[in-house]
Amino acid sequence: MIEKTNRINALFDFYEPLLTKKQMEYISLYYRDDFSLGEIAENYAVSRQAVYDNIKRTEKILEEYENKLHLYQAFIQRGQQIEALETYFAKNYPEDQKIQDMLNELEYEE
Amino acid sequence: MIEKTNRINALFDFYEPLLTKKQMEYISLYYRDDFSLGEIAENYAVSRQAVYDNIKRTEKILEEYENKLHLYQAFIQRGQQIEALETYFAKNYPEDQKIQDMLNELEYEE
Repeated sequence: MIEKTNRINALFDFYEPLLTKKQMEYISLYYRDDFSLGEIAENYAVSRQAVYDNIKRTEKILEEYENKLHLYQAFIQRGQQIEALETYFAKNYPEDQKIQDMLNELEYEE
Repeated sequence: MIEKTNRINALFDFYEPLLTKKQMEYISLYYRDDFSLGEIAENYAVSRQAVYDNIKRTEKILEEYENKLHLYQAFIQRGQQIEALETYFAKNYPEDQKIQDMLNELEYEE
């Protein structure tokens, strides 16, 4: 469950702008803020089932976007490559602070 | 017009998987392969106006995706940062081929 929560939160980070307001709110409350289905239902004055259906549908939409655009996958891959560069530079040019700064800029852009 | 063609082609590279088959085909024939509206219309046995409307709509969709996800903008920015790194390394560590290889890998991932 933690693994699924982390994945949905990661996909949400990338594809949030493509969701509707309601999809965005429900999935964020459920996965990011750890509200229960019942709490969300009460808050929006809808049935628990409606919240559940909406969230399941949004999960599917997020996975479909990832299948098409691979943003999360590319982000992971780029992170690994930058980490490899950082390790290489820290070992071979430990005195060069400018390199670390440039790499940090690259890393935190997303 | 060349500037617009380049931009639409770039956006198309990033967001093509989010388009319908017809949107994908029309915009690709028009902007990438330089077919005229009339030629596309004849080929698909539809009116020139239908092709025109579809392409205008697809251009709008591509710009909307870019407004939301900024993939093209991020790609440009990352390219500049990697280029700055390459210039720095070529100047300061010209003998280190491994760095150039690692940066090339980073650059051509997208």
